[in-house]
Amino acid sequence: MIYSRVPGIRRALLVLVATLSCAHAGGAAAEDGYKLWLRYAPLDAGARDIYGSQATGVVAFGRSPVLAAALAELNTGLSGMLGAAPVATSTVADGSIVLGTAASSPQIAARAGALRLAAAGPEGFVLQSTRWDGHPVTLIAANSDVGVLYGAFHLLALMQRHESLARLDVHETPRLKLRVLDHWDNPDRTIERGYAGQSIWDFWRLPGFVDPRYRDYARADASIGINGAVLNNVSASSVYLTPRWIAKAAAIAQVLRPYGIRVYLSVLFNSPLDLGETKSGDPRDPAVIAWWHAKADEIYRAIPDFGGFLVKADSEGQPGPRDYHLTQAQGANMIAAALAPHGGVLMWRAFIYASDDAHDRVRQAYAQFKPLDGQFADNVLVQIKNGPLDFQPREPVHPLFGALPRTNEMLEVQLTKEYLGFSTHLVYLGALYSEVLQWDTFARGAGSTVARVIDGSLDGHTLTGMAGVSNVGVDRDWTGSIFGQADWYAFGRLAWDPQSDPKRIAADWVRMTFSTHPQVVTPIVDLMMGSREAVVDYMTPLGLAHIMASGHHYGPGPWIDTLKRPEWNPVYYHHAGKDGIGFDRTSTGSNALADYAPEVAVRLGDLKADDGKFLLWFHHVPWTYRLPSGRTVWDEVTFRYDRGVSTVRAMSRTWNSLQSSIDPERFYETAAFLGEQLSEAKWWRDACIAYFQSQSGLPLAAGIAPPEHPLSWYEDQVYRYAPGRSQPDPDHGVAR
Amino acid sequence: MIYSRVPGIRRALLVLVATLSCAHAGGAAAEDGYKLWLRYAPLDAGARDIYGSQATGVVAFGRSPVLAAALAELNTGLSGMLGAAPVATSTVADGSIVLGTAASSPQIAARAGALRLAAAGPEGFVLQSTRWDGHPVTLIAANSDVGVLYGAFHLLALMQRHESLARLDVHETPRLKLRVLDHWDNPDRTIERGYAGQSIWDFWRLPGFVDPRYRDYARADASIGINGAVLNNVSASSVYLTPRWIAKAAAIAQVLRPYGIRVYLSVLFNSPLDLGETKSGDPRDPAVIAWWHAKADEIYRAIPDFGGFLVKADSEGQPGPRDYHLTQAQGANMIAAALAPHGGVLMWRAFIYASDDAHDRVRQAYAQFKPLDGQFADNVLVQIKNGPLDFQPREPVHPLFGALPRTNEMLEVQLTKEYLGFSTHLVYLGALYSEVLQWDTFARGAGSTVARVIDGSLDGHTLTGMAGVSNVGVDRDWTGSIFGQADWYAFGRLAWDPQSDPKRIAADWVRMTFSTHPQVVTPIVDLMMGSREAVVDYMTPLGLAHIMASGHHYGPGPWIDTLKRPEWNPVYYHHAGKDGIGFDRTSTGSNALADYAPEVAVRLGDLKADDGKFLLWFHHVPWTYRLPSGRTVWDEVTFRYDRGVSTVRAMSRTWNSLQSSIDPERFYETAAFLGEQLSEAKWWRDACIAYFQSQSGLPLAAGIAPPEHPLSWYEDQVYRYAPGRSQPDPDHGVAR
Repeated sequence: MIYSRVPGIRRALLVLVATLSCAHAGGAAAEDGYKLWLRYAPLDAGARDIYGSQATGVVAFGRSPVLAAALAELNTGLSGMLGAAPVATSTVADGSIVLGTAASSPQIAARAGALRLAAAGPEGFVLQSTRWDGHPVTLIAANSDVGVLYGAFHLLALMQRHESLARLDVHETPRLKLRVLDHWDNPDRTIERGYAGQSIWDFWRLPGFVDPRYRDYARADASIGINGAVLNNVSASSVYLTPRWIAKAAAIAQVLRPYGIRVYLSVLFNSPLDLGETKSGDPRDPAVIAWWHAKADEIYRAIPDFGGFLVKADSEGQPGPRDYHLTQAQGANMIAAALAPHGGVLMWRAFIYASDDAHDRVRQAYAQFKPLDGQFADNVLVQIKNGPLDFQPREPVHPLFGALPRTNEMLEVQLTKEYLGFSTHLVYLGALYSEVLQWDTFARGAGSTVARVIDGSLDGHTLTGMAGVSNVGVDRDWTGSIFGQADWYAFGRLAWDPQSDPKRIAADWVRMTFSTHPQVVTPIVDLMMGSREAVVDYMTPLGLAHIMASGHHYGPGPWIDTLKRPEWNPVYYHHAGKDGIGFDRTSTGSNALADYAPEVAVRLGDLKADDGKFLLWFHHVPWTYRLPSGRTVWDEVTFRYDRGVSTVRAMSRTWNSLQSSIDPERFYETAAFLGEQLSEAKWWRDACIAYFQSQSGLPLAAGIAPPEHPLSWYEDQVYRYAPGRSQPDPDHGVAR
Repeated sequence: MIYSRVPGIRRALLVLVATLSCAHAGGAAAEDGYKLWLRYAPLDAGARDIYGSQATGVVAFGRSPVLAAALAELNTGLSGMLGAAPVATSTVADGSIVLGTAASSPQIAARAGALRLAAAGPEGFVLQSTRWDGHPVTLIAANSDVGVLYGAFHLLALMQRHESLARLDVHETPRLKLRVLDHWDNPDRTIERGYAGQSIWDFWRLPGFVDPRYRDYARADASIGINGAVLNNVSASSVYLTPRWIAKAAAIAQVLRPYGIRVYLSVLFNSPLDLGETKSGDPRDPAVIAWWHAKADEIYRAIPDFGGFLVKADSEGQPGPRDYHLTQAQGANMIAAALAPHGGVLMWRAFIYASDDAHDRVRQAYAQFKPLDGQFADNVLVQIKNGPLDFQPREPVHPLFGALPRTNEMLEVQLTKEYLGFSTHLVYLGALYSEVLQWDTFARGAGSTVARVIDGSLDGHTLTGMAGVSNVGVDRDWTGSIFGQADWYAFGRLAWDPQSDPKRIAADWVRMTFSTHPQVVTPIVDLMMGSREAVVDYMTPLGLAHIMASGHHYGPGPWIDTLKRPEWNPVYYHHAGKDGIGFDRTSTGSNALADYAPEVAVRLGDLKADDGKFLLWFHHVPWTYRLPSGRTVWDEVTFRYDRGVSTVRAMSRTWNSLQSSIDPERFYETAAFLGEQLSEAKWWRDACIAYFQSQSGLPLAAGIAPPEHPLSWYEDQVYRYAPGRSQPDPDHGVAR
C-alpha cells in the first residue's frame, strides 16, 4: 500500500508507516517467543531440498498416546520446516522416517544387537541412517515409545540446527532417572519467586477446562528430556491433597502423560493435621501413618503413574519431624512408606535452617544430614541445593554432595533468577549449572564430580535425579524473557547429560531460537557465556553473597542489619568493617571448611586460589591484603564491580549490533531489558561501592568512578511492588 | 503426511493423529482470541473481488501519529482481508480510500457543508462513497485525525461484516464525551474482581520496557470509540502519584495517545498524607491544597493530555471528605480545582456506604448526593453505578439518575462479571447495559431515559460520560473467555451511542468474531440475548439480590448471616422467613421507593408490574401470594431457578450444534465453559431452593426436582482460592 502524495496539494503528505508498527498491528505477532526453541521456521530452499528427500514419509510401528505425540510433533515440525507435509507413502520408501521399538517391530528386534538398543535403556534411543527393505531411511529405534518420542525431537532439533542427517548414528541415553521441574506455584496462581506472570496451572478452571497450553508445556519439556513436574510450591498448601484438587492434578497428568512426564506434588509435612483429618501430626501416630497410606492410594487411583511427593520440612516456618523430636530420615521414611507400594518416590529437601540454631547457616544442612547417611528409605532422594546458602550468583558447592554415599542424592538448581536480576537480566545459567556439575568433591578421590555423585556412578545408585526450580509462567514467552528460555533448555539438556558442554548447549539453543548463521550464533553465544561472570561481578564479586535487599531480593542492600534473625541480614554474610571484609569459615571461624573433603578444604583455604572466586565466602581479610592480581582486596572489590558494569555495557552493544539479523519484537525486548540490566548493574556497583567505602574508609583507585549518589540515597530506595512475592512485604514502609 | 501400514507386518498400525492435535501442536494457535473482533480474516473470493476494487489504495491528507495509526490499521486490515496490500497508486484513482480533515485538505474543506462535517463534532466522522477528481472513492472525512481514525475502523468493520460499501453515507458522532474503561488494577498486578489474569499494565518494567500489547489494547479500544483508560484500582494506592510511577503512566499514555485515548488515574483522597508529604489530609489545609496543585502540574508536565482523576471516597474503608466533616462536593471540588487549569476532569464516585449509617444501604448514596445538586464544580462528574446496590444480575436503576439536574452525571457499569459467574459464565452484558440506558427516570416526564440523562440532552450538560469496569487482563484472549470480549465491545458501542440496539451490537460482534453466515450468527445472537435473563433466573430471580457467598462472591450463600456488618449478609437482602420473602422498601419499610420519580415509584410499588422483575427488591410478600403467572411466590421462585438451568442447558446444546462451524480452539473453550456454567447454575438453583425451602417449609411444585444435596452440603462448600481477590480471604477457614 502506498500512501500517495496528491500532486498540486501542498498539505497532502506522505505518511510513512514503519515496518515495525505494521508487523505489530496484526495482533498475534509472529515472534512473540511462545514457540520457544520449537519454532520449526521454514528452511531455505537448499536445506529444504536436502531434508525433504530425507523425510518423505513417516512409518510408525505400534500405537499409543506417546507414539501419537511423536507423530504429531514430526507432522508439525516437518510441515513447518519443509513448507508442506511429507509426500504420502503407503510403505517404507526412500527417505522414510521409521519409528518403532523391538516390541512393536520384528525388524527392529532383529537389529537390536547391531543398534546396541540394550544400552539405550528405558528412555534412550538410537537415531540412525540405515537401509530398510533396501531403502535408505532414518530409523528412530528405542525400547519404549517415550524413547521414540525423544528420538523424534532429536531428529527435528538436528534439522532446526541445519545439521546433516546423512550418516546419523546417534545413541542417546539419559544419565539421570528423574529430570524434574519444581514449580513454586501457589493455589491462588501466584508463584513464589516467579517473574513470568501467574502460574500456567489454572487450577480454578480444572478439571472442567484443560488449557491447550499444558500440551505445549509438555512438548517443550519432552523436547529436552524433562520427565517430571512438581506442580506446586514447596511451601505447600494442603489443599492439593483434597479430592477436588487431586482431580485437577489428574487432568494435568493426563495431558503430560503422552509426553513421558510424571506429575508430582509438594506436600506439607503435617498435612492430615492441617486438613483437620487427624488429631496430631506426629509421624508415629498410627492415624497419621494410615492417613498417608490412604492418601497415596487415593492419588494413585486418580493418577496411576503419579511420580511422588516433594517435601520442604523444618525450614522457613514449615513443619517437619523436628517438631516431634525425630530425625529428617524418620520423617521422610514415614511418608515414603506410603508411596513405596505404588513405586512412588519422595524428594526430601536438605534446605534446612532453623531459627533456634546458632550455627553458621551454611553448615546446618550438613550437620543435620551427614549423621543420617544410610538411614533413608530406598525410595527417598535427598534434594540438595547447588550451594549451601540459597541460589546466590556464586557459591561453593554444597558440602553434602559426595558426603552421603549410602543415600540417593539429587541436585536442585534454580531456573528462576531470584537473586540474579529476575527475568529482566540476561544471565545464562547453563554456565552456573555446569560449574556445579564439574566441581570435584574428592569424595572418592580426584574425579568425584557432582555430576558423578548425582548420576549414581560414584556410589552405585540407580535412583538419581536433578530438579530445577521452574522459571515458567503465563507470560506469552513462558519465562518472562526470550533469554530465560535458554535456562529452561540448558537445564533439560544437563539433566539428560550432566557432562554436556554448556557452550555447546547455548549454541544449539541460539540456532533453534534465532538463526543458524554464524554471524548471529557466535556473538550471542559469547554474550551468554560471559553473562554469568558479569552478574557475579556486579552483584557479589570475590565470594560475597546474600547482600541483596530484603523480602523481594531485588537490588542491593549490603547495609541491612535490622532484620530479626541474624542470618537474614546482609551484614551477617560480609562482615565488612574497618578491619576488612569476609566471613571467616576457616578453623579460626565457623570452620565450614571442615565439611569438605580435605583436598577441597585445602584449595578453598588458600587465599590465592581460584582467582578469588570464593575468597570472602571463607575468609575475613584486611582491605589492604594484596591478591595475585597485584591489587589489594579493596581495589579488587571495586575493580570487579566496575568490570561487571562494563561487561553488561558490552553485552548491550553486541546485541544492538545484531538489529538487522533479529526480528523486531525479540530484538526490542532484549535491547530494552539489557538497557534495564545496565542501569541496575550500575545501581548495584554504585550502592555496594558506596557502602563498602563507608566501611573501608579507603579512596577509589584511579579509573574507578565514584558512585553517582551518596550512600544514603541508595539506602532510601524502596521497591514495594517487586514481583515474585504473593503479597507486598509489610516491612517496607512507604510504597514507592 | 500418511502414517503408512507396512504390508506383511501385522503390528505396523496406522496411527491417526487428530486434526485438532495437529492444529494445536504448532504452538501459536491461530484462533486463540488475541485478535478480538479485529481478526481481519481472509475474505472469500467473491467478497475479495468486490472490496478489492473499492480499496485499491489509500490517500491520506495530513501527518500525525493519529493518522499514522489509522493508516497502519488500514494496512493491517486490508492486507488481512484481501490477501495482499492494495495496489500502489501515486494519486487518487478509482477505488481509492481518501482520508482527511477540512484542515488538511482544501477539497474536504470545500465539501464540508455537503458532508455536514460540523455535525460530526470533534470526534465524529463522515464515511461516504463519492467522487474525487472524477474517480469513485470512499471518503473518510472528519474534523480531527481521531475522527479519521474512528472512520477507518468503521470502514474495516463494515468489510469484516460483509456489508456493502457501494453507497456509503455514514455520519457518526459519539453521544458521550468520556467513554472510559476503569481498570481496577493494583500496583502488584493483581486485579480486584479480575478474572482474566494479571493486569496488562506491567508497571514493574515500565518505562524501560513498553509491552507491544499496550498498542493492541489501544487498537481494540479505539475501534469501538473508547477514549479513556483509568489505569488503576479505585481502591487506590498512592504509589501512582510518586514521580517514578508518573513516568510509568506517561509511557503508557504515549502508546495510547495516537489512538485518541487519554490516561486517567484513581487517587486516594488523602494521598499527600498517605505519602507523608503533608501533616494532615484535611482538604482545607493550604498545604494539602498546594500539594494537589503541584501534583497536577507535575503530572501534566509528564502527560500533557492527562485526562484527570477518579476518586472513591468515604466507602469501603477509603478516606474521604466525611473524615473532615465536609460534603462530597467540598471534597471533590478541592481536588478538581487542581485539575481545572489543565482541562482535567474529576470523576467522583457516588458509591458511598458507610459503616456508621443505619440507613437502608441502597438509599445512602441518594441521601448524600441529592442535597448537593448544583454544588459540584464544572469539571466534576458524579459517577453512579447502574443500580443502587452493587452490580447485581438485576437491579432497579440508581435513583440518582435524573435526580441531579445541575450536576454532570456519569454512568458506571461493570464489564467484569463479579457477581455474574466470573469469566466462565456466558452472560451478554449488552442486554443489561441497554436495559439501564432505556430505563425511564421520568425526571422531566416520560422519555427521561438514563441515556438522555447521561448524554446531557435532558438537562443541558456537555461534560458527559460512561465508565465500564474493565474485564481485561493478560489472558491471551484478554477477557478470560471469548464471550467476555463481547461485553467490552458492547460497552464501547453503547458509550458511543447509548441508543444502540444491543442485539444489533451482538450480531455485529459475532460477524467480526466468528462468521457472517446466518446459520452461525442467528443462533449465537439468540443465545447471547437470552443469557442475561438466564443468569438472573439461576442466581437472583424476582428481584432478589446479594445472596452470593462472601468475599470472593463466587457461588450461592443466601444463608449467610454471620458477617460483622448487617448489610454484608445475604439475609439482610432477602428477609426470607416463615412469613415470606423480600425487602420492604415501600413506605411501610425503608421507603427507598420515595427516591424515585412518582411515576416510577408507582410502577415499582405495583406487585404485579414488570413480570416481577423487581418484586422482592421492593416488597416483602407472603410465600403464598399469587402472581399474574398464576403461581404463588414460592412456586415462582423455584420455577425461575429451574428455568435458569434449563436455559443454560439449551445454550450449551445450541453451542454444541455449531461445532462444525467454529474453529476447534474457540469451540472447545466455550463448550467447556458452558459445561461449567451448567453445573454452577444447577448449584445455584439447588442451593437456593434448599435454603428458601428451609424458610418457607413448603413443598416443591410438580416438575421441580428436589436439590441434589441437603442444605448443609451447600453450606459446607468452601472455595478459598476463587480468583479476583488480591489475597485469600482469612474468613474462609480450612482451604478446599
